[in-house]
Amino acid sequence: MNIDMIRAAATRLKGHARRTPLLTSPFLDEIAGRRVIVKPECLQHTGSFKFRGGWSAVSALDEATRKRGVIAFSSGNHAQGVALAAAKHGAPAVIVMPNDAPALKIDNTRALGAEVVLYDRPGGENREAVGDVIARERGLTLIRPYDEPQVIAGQGTTGLEIAEQARELGVENGDVLICCGGGGLTSGIAMALEAEAPGLRARPVEPEGFDDVVRSLITGGIETNNRQSGSLCDAIITPSPGEITFPIMSRLCGPGVVVSEDQAMHAVALAFKRLKIVVEPGGAVALAAALFHGDKIEGEAVVAVCTGGNVDKDVFGDALARFA
Amino acid sequence: MNIDMIRAAATRLKGHARRTPLLTSPFLDEIAGRRVIVKPECLQHTGSFKFRGGWSAVSALDEATRKRGVIAFSSGNHAQGVALAAAKHGAPAVIVMPNDAPALKIDNTRALGAEVVLYDRPGGENREAVGDVIARERGLTLIRPYDEPQVIAGQGTTGLEIAEQARELGVENGDVLICCGGGGLTSGIAMALEAEAPGLRARPVEPEGFDDVVRSLITGGIETNNRQSGSLCDAIITPSPGEITFPIMSRLCGPGVVVSEDQAMHAVALAFKRLKIVVEPGGAVALAAALFHGDKIEGEAVVAVCTGGNVDKDVFGDALARFA
Repeated sequence: MNIDMIRAAATRLKGHARRTPLLTSPFLDEIAGRRVIVKPECLQHTGSFKFRGGWSAVSALDEATRKRGVIAFSSGNHAQGVALAAAKHGAPAVIVMPNDAPALKIDNTRALGAEVVLYDRPGGENREAVGDVIARERGLTLIRPYDEPQVIAGQGTTGLEIAEQARELGVENGDVLICCGGGGLTSGIAMALEAEAPGLRARPVEPEGFDDVVRSLITGGIETNNRQSGSLCDAIITPSPGEITFPIMSRLCGPGVVVSEDQAMHAVALAFKRLKIVVEPGGAVALAAALFHGDKIEGEAVVAVCTGGNVDKDVFGDALARFA
Repeated sequence: MNIDMIRAAATRLKGHARRTPLLTSPFLDEIAGRRVIVKPECLQHTGSFKFRGGWSAVSALDEATRKRGVIAFSSGNHAQGVALAAAKHGAPAVIVMPNDAPALKIDNTRALGAEVVLYDRPGGENREAVGDVIARERGLTLIRPYDEPQVIAGQGTTGLEIAEQARELGVENGDVLICCGGGGLTSGIAMALEAEAPGLRARPVEPEGFDDVVRSLITGGIETNNRQSGSLCDAIITPSPGEITFPIMSRLCGPGVVVSEDQAMHAVALAFKRLKIVVEPGGAVALAAALFHGDKIEGEAVVAVCTGGNVDKDVFGDALARFA
């Protein structure tokens, strides 16, 4: 796992992934007390940065392997990112989802060209067991959501763009806040910044109660969350940082920041009002940290990555009703 | 009014106006039956394309004139665009608004650095009379919302970007649909496309009951709307096309398209769900035409300009509840 892999992924993504712009608002600057610069990956294909990792992984396969197809375990943004990336390569994709996943997510993933295989989560069926049988039978390649070098390389292209775009805005020093699940995006961005913008420092942001990465960075060992569900920030809830991602974050990242669910919802509302983008609560924790935890941040400007926008209309409406 | 003025405006806007990306979604393509490409000017500074015209006009003034300041009559997107453009130039801006304008719009315009002067609309006071006195006393330059060459030139830079960005996507033929008020944006884009992408044709889109431009293009003379208010698409409601903009549209534009308010609201909801952008109803009529009036459109791909995102949360919530 090195910067050359990220640069190679950027070459493969060119013309396929969207180069998202940087967004700003004087109203957000006033709240934060410093310049706030948002990288809206909610505008990426499939509504999250996950398309980058999906494209990177699928495009890195040799032709024969790619033709057999890929498989992923996800009911969320990773599923859609892999599905569309595979479809655009003309490669079959199997997405393994729990049978109690929202019908809309299943439908969306199918509409993006993937075959959805359901496993009986409430009945205690093991998804890996289900997936492994299919993968072996068809010779599918597993694409893990974050602990996978080519996925990290794809997510890291976000960091290459931030380095270049922030420089155009005259920002070469400060913190880059990243909504963090398993650490694929955070570790990829950290490596890209180390190489291309050493004055910018990657820092993970997590919601209260699901701060495994933040605690892991403090203790120096891989920590685990007690709960695995029950957060509005579901898009970025993972049990613990990855075995590949954690050492990278440990070496390169500044301290993590924890925000409350209410702060995440408030950031969702402000992104609606001031930036005109749709962000899911989990994708808004970095912006929430930039706006409401300024005392923990260094520098005259801060970059916040809004990682995804796949939010239910009721949750979004609730954020607007309470905070817009 | 010519293409050189648009190119010169683009030079002045570089590094100041945002170069908005083009957005797409396979889900929208399926609804429309062709490729749908969205130019999201809701992501422009102040949440609408109006910042371009504001910047163009303010930056075109000579130093001494600019220092005296500018004045605009608007309670909407033009007010905010001019206010921020003037503030960033260090120029005073007076915005004349009716005293029954929403408090939020007044506050936002003030927060962007402008002096807001209220006139008594319910009491029948004439805004031009109020504004003219101030303008004369202070030597302010009036910036009209659309019938103003440097404003048209600024809006036209959107067309230069569309020409270049559409070419990158392999789209060189087809219709470019534009939410149309007085025609500043539509005429500017039409001129830019004539010069830079002659296979792309500008076409205005308006809401039912406020289709002055569409009718004017049919009759060949300037037609007027019976009503001046009462539309959810308030951002693009004007009495009639401008004296400068209409001849340009008449020479260069394809036939206009009229959409219903419900279709505009449906497009607002689909832009939320599939593109993760916040669009106001008036800023969504072009997308609505692309999605729901495909029979009136030619070409394998269609470009729709989403012109603004300054929508009240209640209106937005209503669109989601009904159509998302």
